[in-house]
Amino acid sequence: MSDIVLHNYYRSSTSHRVRIALEMKGLSYDYVPHHLRHGEHLEPAYLRINPQGLVPTLVWNDGMLLTQSLAIIEFLDESKPEPPLLPEDPSGRARVRMLAQMIACDIHPVNNLRVLTSLRTLFGAGDQDIANWFRHWVNEGFQPLEKILASSPRTGTFCHGEAPGLADICLAAQVTSNARFGVDLAPYPTIARINAACMALPAFQKAAPQNQIDAE
Amino acid sequence: MSDIVLHNYYRSSTSHRVRIALEMKGLSYDYVPHHLRHGEHLEPAYLRINPQGLVPTLVWNDGMLLTQSLAIIEFLDESKPEPPLLPEDPSGRARVRMLAQMIACDIHPVNNLRVLTSLRTLFGAGDQDIANWFRHWVNEGFQPLEKILASSPRTGTFCHGEAPGLADICLAAQVTSNARFGVDLAPYPTIARINAACMALPAFQKAAPQNQIDAE
Repeated sequence: MSDIVLHNYYRSSTSHRVRIALEMKGLSYDYVPHHLRHGEHLEPAYLRINPQGLVPTLVWNDGMLLTQSLAIIEFLDESKPEPPLLPEDPSGRARVRMLAQMIACDIHPVNNLRVLTSLRTLFGAGDQDIANWFRHWVNEGFQPLEKILASSPRTGTFCHGEAPGLADICLAAQVTSNARFGVDLAPYPTIARINAACMALPAFQKAAPQNQIDAE
Repeated sequence: MSDIVLHNYYRSSTSHRVRIALEMKGLSYDYVPHHLRHGEHLEPAYLRINPQGLVPTLVWNDGMLLTQSLAIIEFLDESKPEPPLLPEDPSGRARVRMLAQMIACDIHPVNNLRVLTSLRTLFGAGDQDIANWFRHWVNEGFQPLEKILASSPRTGTFCHGEAPGLADICLAAQVTSNARFGVDLAPYPTIARINAACMALPAFQKAAPQNQIDAE
């Protein structure tokens, strides 16, 4: 048994982010899957752990418990600084957080499973409507993200310089999630290049959805 | 003219968060309004500043530019540490970020103006559908938030202890935004109590939507 338990779902993009961070930090963890499509995250036993009924939740053996992927990743970075997931300078840290939040606040939440499900039940959205909705919000976010990344001298092999960090974690998890809805990456050469650089790294490979025990 | 220009909209909840932080830090700024309902945020001149076409954007007179309210607030906190908006200990910082993100990632993005507008145009949602949608996602987030705040000894007069910070900023801005859609706060006594404590402070009063130059 590890010191850390990750409540998670292989296909959840926010779970995916935390897995990448744990792998990058070299932290081992116990993987507890909750099948979102079977509603396992809404069972009373899990709601006692995380009243929000969302994944991921990270629980330490001293009782500490955290939800929210970006809060978890910043905590991992503060408590185990190597390798750093944020730059040292405040303006670099701000830039990386901004890039991460362009995905984590403006793309992913609107395309989350519970929102897509609500579109079906409340408005009778069909598979095609759902796919269009998903692609629309990804494109709304990826167009400015591509522009910012492509035009900044601070962009390197990764979103910020030559080492992967918080923004790359969000980028790679989002690109993985996109594939299920057929998002075309051709208009986003910088994003595609950074994603390829990420996916060449063992930490990103180990954290990928298809390599988890609950993958279907 | 100030050293800082805030591109913003009085009723935008993310703009509201940044205004509170600027007031708490005692930073003066020039207020440039962009009327979202008139599409002013999508005009070419503004898209050159922020290709995402969203508010807020904060621009410093040395050319530095930041978007994304949480990234901006963390930068303000790192570059002008007093009064602190995050606790000093990593687990406290993580808890405050988690509480903030429960609002900033799981409530606000789904209820943003552009999403509500899409529900109207794509699915023919009417005013009542929109109000129900808004209240649903607030309640989905406020129920666990209330539970976590009410059950933790770390909750004080504010979300975390006796001084207001990042989580309180998000909480107060969300409660303000709720009022337009008639969200009932009665099931959330802890959230209501913390919001009242925030609204007793001059920084929160000055930053309120109705006190901005573009308020209608």
